[in-house]
Amino acid sequence: MTPKEIIVEQAYEMFFRSGIKSITMDDISRETGVSKRTIYENFRDKDELVASCLHLMDERFNREYNKIEKESDNTLIMVFRFMKFGTDVLNSINPQFTPDLKKYHFRVWKETMTVNEKKYNARTLKILKKGIRERVFRETIDVEVVSILLNEQLRIISDETVFPSSRFPKIVVFENVLINFFRGIATQKGLDLIDKYLREESDKFVTVGT
Amino acid sequence: MTPKEIIVEQAYEMFFRSGIKSITMDDISRETGVSKRTIYENFRDKDELVASCLHLMDERFNREYNKIEKESDNTLIMVFRFMKFGTDVLNSINPQFTPDLKKYHFRVWKETMTVNEKKYNARTLKILKKGIRERVFRETIDVEVVSILLNEQLRIISDETVFPSSRFPKIVVFENVLINFFRGIATQKGLDLIDKYLREESDKFVTVGT
Repeated sequence: MTPKEIIVEQAYEMFFRSGIKSITMDDISRETGVSKRTIYENFRDKDELVASCLHLMDERFNREYNKIEKESDNTLIMVFRFMKFGTDVLNSINPQFTPDLKKYHFRVWKETMTVNEKKYNARTLKILKKGIRERVFRETIDVEVVSILLNEQLRIISDETVFPSSRFPKIVVFENVLINFFRGIATQKGLDLIDKYLREESDKFVTVGT
Repeated sequence: MTPKEIIVEQAYEMFFRSGIKSITMDDISRETGVSKRTIYENFRDKDELVASCLHLMDERFNREYNKIEKESDNTLIMVFRFMKFGTDVLNSINPQFTPDLKKYHFRVWKETMTVNEKKYNARTLKILKKGIRERVFRETIDVEVVSILLNEQLRIISDETVFPSSRFPKIVVFENVLINFFRGIATQKGLDLIDKYLREESDKFVTVGT
């Protein structure tokens, strides 16, 4: 690994574990053994380092997504497995991470959201159409509306003004929002698959949606 | 009817038909035959008149809600009938109404939303719990999370930045969001009721959710 990669990996883990604000460039230098001078040669400021961490997160999500897609027999199981991966990541992140990101690195957050939203929208449309062909999603849904709607659900889940994590454990919100969402657009075949999946993996979920 | 009531009724209909901005106090005076002097004796300004119209709307919604509640055998059918009433109202409102309200009468809109949100939240919680007792909603849902979530769906539906009405007919958005939402939290018994209702009333819906 190059020093740059070492710094990003380490910062990524520290930000996720402790939030962004509480981690200084000094902390990262100490943990990696890379001098602050070298850190600043690679990253103009903390903003740029945070952006690289978000990029790394996106890469890892994509890699996991491609792996799950390849391993899944049908779209619904793929979606639920990916959701499970999402909840695991969510559980491992310090609750301050997203608020810190929005508060102290707003520009980076906004730019990442804009780029990702387009990409995720295209992917969601593809998933919905595939699910309709496989008869796990109802063909009467308006895929464009439902695709935007799913994006909104993901935004709502992480919106602290809607579901403050002090009152609502993120995992309960996540499951209630997303399991209900996919049940909502599922055919009977889809519902049977969801129930079967949740029964088999019930130890992995807080609420079981049957 | 008092002059005050005549003014509010007329303004209410005109705002709904043509949006708020395009209707002047002169227009209302002309249509009602009530002098502008009397209008201003009853309402300090257009803000106050708009607030009274929103209050009237709330009253009518409540009256209709109570009527539908009394006439419905079970919670799911009640919800769908009330939704149908909502889509009919939505269809009859000029698309400029809500944007005008937010843009030119922000304070009134904000105050109404704050008051209503609390009231609607309490009502939604009651509906969800009743539906669970009747076994039409799944008992594993977190009623508090789902109640907030429903509020968010209603907000999303009327959010022009999410679903611009130039691209997405409000009625298609409404049905995709709400039918899917209630299917998402329904038991098998609930789903059967929804399907039966949508089949019987299919002429009243754009998309049929079976």
